[in-house]
Amino acid sequence: MRTQYYTASSLDGFIATEDHSLEWLLQLGDIAETGYPDFIQSVGALAMGSSTYEWMLRHVVKPGSEAAWPYSQPTWVFSSRALPNVVGANILFVRGDVRPVHAHMLHAAAGKNIWLVGGGDLVGQFYDAGLLDEIIVQIGSVTLGAGKPLLPRRIAFPPLSLRSARAMGKGFAELRYDVPHKTDSRSADG
Amino acid sequence: MRTQYYTASSLDGFIATEDHSLEWLLQLGDIAETGYPDFIQSVGALAMGSSTYEWMLRHVVKPGSEAAWPYSQPTWVFSSRALPNVVGANILFVRGDVRPVHAHMLHAAAGKNIWLVGGGDLVGQFYDAGLLDEIIVQIGSVTLGAGKPLLPRRIAFPPLSLRSARAMGKGFAELRYDVPHKTDSRSADG
Repeated sequence: MRTQYYTASSLDGFIATEDHSLEWLLQLGDIAETGYPDFIQSVGALAMGSSTYEWMLRHVVKPGSEAAWPYSQPTWVFSSRALPNVVGANILFVRGDVRPVHAHMLHAAAGKNIWLVGGGDLVGQFYDAGLLDEIIVQIGSVTLGAGKPLLPRRIAFPPLSLRSARAMGKGFAELRYDVPHKTDSRSADG
Repeated sequence: MRTQYYTASSLDGFIATEDHSLEWLLQLGDIAETGYPDFIQSVGALAMGSSTYEWMLRHVVKPGSEAAWPYSQPTWVFSSRALPNVVGANILFVRGDVRPVHAHMLHAAAGKNIWLVGGGDLVGQFYDAGLLDEIIVQIGSVTLGAGKPLLPRRIAFPPLSLRSARAMGKGFAELRYDVPHKTDSRSADG
């Protein structure tokens, strides 16, 4: 049971453009041809921030469309604002400290993994609390020059530990890392 | 004969911290165990910006040390400022448009490759002029959160083309890309 940040980014470390566009990403290939189908089978609970959730409302669960919420697993949405719900989806709106929420997610995941969908700052909060185990990045074959950062934290001393690197066609390289757990006083008392 | 940007970066796309430190990089492994020895054998000329050159003056060719300039190939240093020379090194100081300099470098390289050492903005100028063929990045297993950008350009439509991805121990993943050549009016008249 691991807490995983699974995402796509540009080669220069951005997960979206400044205006939240993923056009650069969607041109690169079919998600069904990546490791995603295997990955999602082992996920028991999801967490995402409000920007990621709102992107899904605009692009996946469009108003008036028949497209369903794509996840059967319970999904925690971190937001300090009131956001619209999705009928038929198992969504819980939360705010504040990630630690008690993570405890609930662990229970709900029932032995499966926890997927931190993004954005980068929410994942950074899990890292700060010593709760991030793994980073799995599909590096898309583009540079963006600016945009939403992959993970706005310095994780360098000790560094990450690369578990694997593989090309998936010309459009993606998948890198998997184990994350060292923070042991400073801020998280050790959590 | 290809013009190559060969560099190391963090997973989040920075080639150095904001204060030009490479401490995060130097802990990750021995350069002799990477693809560097093979790479440098095929290089016939180098180009670098003033910050990269000044980093080498401080850290490699230290004042009073016996350490020699590490490159036998001719090296073009782009700078609008006067910079100290290195005795015994084949260094040419230039400024301005990269295109006539690239033509001189091609001639000097005599069939070997041209290495763009960095920084990111100088490499971006070669890209803008349609002169960048390849990007080879050793992605170090760290995130920095902030720093000097890998390549402050948007290269997305068309995207880069991934040629290979491989892990080199736990500290580095090497990604190699072919770069699409710009064909817009700004560079087509070059």
